[in-house]
Amino acid sequence: MQYSVTTKDIDERRKRDGKLVAGTAAKADIGSFKSFPDWQQLPKARRWDHIITKESAAREPCVLKQAAVHLKKPGLISLGGGLPSPENFPIVSLSVRVPNGETEFTDAAAATEDGGAAVTMGKYDASQALGATSGGSGPAAEYDLSIALNYGQACGSAQMLRWVTEHTELVCRPPYSDWSTCLTVGSTGALEQALRIFCDRDRHDTLLTEAYSFSTALETAKPLGIRVVGIEMDEQGMIPESLDALLSGWDVQARGGSAKPHLLYTVPSGQNPTGATQSAERRQAIYKVCQTHDVYILEDEPYYFLQMPPYQRNRPAASAEPAPTQTSEEFLGSLMPTFVSMDVDGRVMRIDSFSKVLVPGSRMGWLTASEQIIERFVRHAEACNQGPSGFSQVALYQILEKTWGHENYFKWLAHIRESYTQRRNTLLDACEDHLPTSVVSWTPPTAGMFHWLTVDHTKHPDHGKRGILELEKEIFDLCIESGVLVGRGSWFAAEPDQPPAGLFFRVTYASATAPRMTEAITRFGAAVRKSFLL
Amino acid sequence: MQYSVTTKDIDERRKRDGKLVAGTAAKADIGSFKSFPDWQQLPKARRWDHIITKESAAREPCVLKQAAVHLKKPGLISLGGGLPSPENFPIVSLSVRVPNGETEFTDAAAATEDGGAAVTMGKYDASQALGATSGGSGPAAEYDLSIALNYGQACGSAQMLRWVTEHTELVCRPPYSDWSTCLTVGSTGALEQALRIFCDRDRHDTLLTEAYSFSTALETAKPLGIRVVGIEMDEQGMIPESLDALLSGWDVQARGGSAKPHLLYTVPSGQNPTGATQSAERRQAIYKVCQTHDVYILEDEPYYFLQMPPYQRNRPAASAEPAPTQTSEEFLGSLMPTFVSMDVDGRVMRIDSFSKVLVPGSRMGWLTASEQIIERFVRHAEACNQGPSGFSQVALYQILEKTWGHENYFKWLAHIRESYTQRRNTLLDACEDHLPTSVVSWTPPTAGMFHWLTVDHTKHPDHGKRGILELEKEIFDLCIESGVLVGRGSWFAAEPDQPPAGLFFRVTYASATAPRMTEAITRFGAAVRKSFLL
Repeated sequence: MQYSVTTKDIDERRKRDGKLVAGTAAKADIGSFKSFPDWQQLPKARRWDHIITKESAAREPCVLKQAAVHLKKPGLISLGGGLPSPENFPIVSLSVRVPNGETEFTDAAAATEDGGAAVTMGKYDASQALGATSGGSGPAAEYDLSIALNYGQACGSAQMLRWVTEHTELVCRPPYSDWSTCLTVGSTGALEQALRIFCDRDRHDTLLTEAYSFSTALETAKPLGIRVVGIEMDEQGMIPESLDALLSGWDVQARGGSAKPHLLYTVPSGQNPTGATQSAERRQAIYKVCQTHDVYILEDEPYYFLQMPPYQRNRPAASAEPAPTQTSEEFLGSLMPTFVSMDVDGRVMRIDSFSKVLVPGSRMGWLTASEQIIERFVRHAEACNQGPSGFSQVALYQILEKTWGHENYFKWLAHIRESYTQRRNTLLDACEDHLPTSVVSWTPPTAGMFHWLTVDHTKHPDHGKRGILELEKEIFDLCIESGVLVGRGSWFAAEPDQPPAGLFFRVTYASATAPRMTEAITRFGAAVRKSFLL
Repeated sequence: MQYSVTTKDIDERRKRDGKLVAGTAAKADIGSFKSFPDWQQLPKARRWDHIITKESAAREPCVLKQAAVHLKKPGLISLGGGLPSPENFPIVSLSVRVPNGETEFTDAAAATEDGGAAVTMGKYDASQALGATSGGSGPAAEYDLSIALNYGQACGSAQMLRWVTEHTELVCRPPYSDWSTCLTVGSTGALEQALRIFCDRDRHDTLLTEAYSFSTALETAKPLGIRVVGIEMDEQGMIPESLDALLSGWDVQARGGSAKPHLLYTVPSGQNPTGATQSAERRQAIYKVCQTHDVYILEDEPYYFLQMPPYQRNRPAASAEPAPTQTSEEFLGSLMPTFVSMDVDGRVMRIDSFSKVLVPGSRMGWLTASEQIIERFVRHAEACNQGPSGFSQVALYQILEKTWGHENYFKWLAHIRESYTQRRNTLLDACEDHLPTSVVSWTPPTAGMFHWLTVDHTKHPDHGKRGILELEKEIFDLCIESGVLVGRGSWFAAEPDQPPAGLFFRVTYASATAPRMTEAITRFGAAVRKSFLL
């Protein structure tokens, strides 16, 4: 069933629901944050008991948190959990200064140093100080420091869960009923937790991913004894036919006893390191292969909102005028569909991040998956991190909920992707101007912050005499010598023990200024020329 | 070798060192933060390769972070790591309002709502905005949002590591040279990471701990396939002779193939759930047994600074005058020695927390251990959380470093322990007044936030007919019925499949107000009387 939810639907649901009352360590009811009125009519997700690991299956709810059900009893006094009293918290208020949602986000930094909005949260904005007499109608706010800075649920605060659930419904419209969300301590940690749910050392489980993949993801899998198999890629990333062929022809014996893989990790938009973005058709085809072979999908989308228009060399000069503002519907319509939006089976865990669009330092993101999987994830979070920092939750709540709201957050995302589009354009202009196109080729990225350069090693004077990795090292060293740091393709190989598919380098347009990016590419080009004796 | 370090030594070392220059993702040199001048002359820690797990041993440094060594090259332009540019961070400043260090901390909340100090950190206080022209002598601050809110090292920022290293040297004075520190995402997560360093599912490894232990610690160990064995306790906690006897008589075959244990988890001060505090002699004796049997020690000390004077019923009334201020030396002299302070072998990982003395919501603490173990821990942190939230690091830096300093932090700790001492006294007064001492007994706790009540089940009219767990449930249910939530002893049993050693309940004085605590104990007493037909 297809449906859609707008920010207006959310406003109306919130109005009907009234104030969110959720005190210290309150449990959130994710269903109550959904705005599609018929969500409970959707089919339920499949169960994944057959692939869940020993470790994950053995997790039981925390006994002290279970006892908290008794706290609902009227008049009960708790001498149960050792939660410190907020009277002993030394922080009375916390303020952040951010661009307010009314101005255009054309120059966020400048806008806020002078103006913007200073949003302040006090200790008892939403609750009464212990022992204080009630001031009549009670406090007006929904969240405060006495709640956020105490122990909470490992899934995150109800206040932030409401926000991410609404955002997810706007973006993904999951087509099954029991989808749920929980906060994470960032996507890196979320991936490790996910691997511990699905991959068992004793079963010699295999993780499928792109042939060139996020190095930290590979480094996360390896110590857990997980075997990684890379799927062939083209300019749209992972090739579904290759995935299908691999799974159809899987030979347990030839694979040293590894069962047929049941887990796929993919970065569909602006893939790290190749910059490839899967088209809508590509995503549908991959999902279908995963249905056929009963594969669970980890959809890691840190760059999802950094999807860009195609690169054009002869484009109109960047206008001083701000681009016409898009509505949230227009903005969302410009993005590729998510795997979750086609996930009729509940076989996808989507891993979302604030790192690339707000700040990496929040160490906070969120997941979307079926209730069963979210519950397993949270059971682990209770032991491995107890959920994200209260300071992070407060800071992001102040920005997203109190200052911007959903509509302005989409405007912010549009602003950020415009900023990255200009950076990409600068880098690609420099590549066209300064790289020897006789040996270096590329596909202009349409999302993210990475650009992948293919160097034709067959044209190297030492071709046949020296291997790809040797040439890669030579060019990398020449780069360092001439003052530019790039990523070596081999760092990202899913199967580093296999012969490399080619000679690649990853460059990022995330952080250097325009003149330095141009200079850096010039240096890279010179290093390649030197190695190739051009 | 014994030595001591004072806050004055730290001030002088800092003066000599000058400004700490540590930008985005800078690596910290922990040695440079030590103030004892001859620390390098101390003997080195032992190596622990023989007990480190397959998983931990397989961890290699993150390839992208290794490449960062090249960033030191003058003039180098990085197109390497995908760090977002801080120009895209929407937060321009962050302020916290806290009691300033000059006032007494007698009523922290009241002091700061009106006054106190609002400490503000800007985006570029320590660094120049990209592309901005330098303003002469350069920025004065050592830390700012452009650093704290970007990706950083998983061990934490140099700015916070300096602070915890100095604090640790003041408190613990480790007697070996290569001790190190790193931040954690809280002690709960730190324990799971530690267990993955030392306990291997395939080896059927055993964790030793108190017979009644922190339930979350037990819940953390179990899904990892770790067997837990509880050590007999008295009013000072774990009994070293019992530990020695267990290890001396360990029979691998009788234990189903589990090798002799090599890991001990202990909460030495205000142990959860029993409230027991190990004396100095007790700690020395336990350390010695661990040396004899080559056992590594996890010293978990969330309540270390909540050590209190002994409980006295007929004490002078709490004075309205603040207690005379102690110097940091006097305060530290009132505390039991840490295991790290006697750790000549480097066989201790001390797990420190801000949760009980500042706020739990920071999800940030720190470790002290030998370099080898810290390095293994950080390798895992790179995959499982990337270190604590930047918002948490900023907030705590603002309080600890910018507002208070070490000397005032010890004053704060003295204030907090005084607050918990009063709470303990209230609860114990209520126990003396309202519990049937014919069947309920206890040892007054001298640290922490927990009180452990022993109910003499042999005096129950149904003794011999109903088991301890049945009686425990009956009393718990009667408690809920009469409106009080307490912890059941069996929730904390290290070996829940063994017959319980007695009938116990845990109560906390952490959070209820004085009149409610007294009422709650009255209700508990009534529940016991009802069950025992008194």
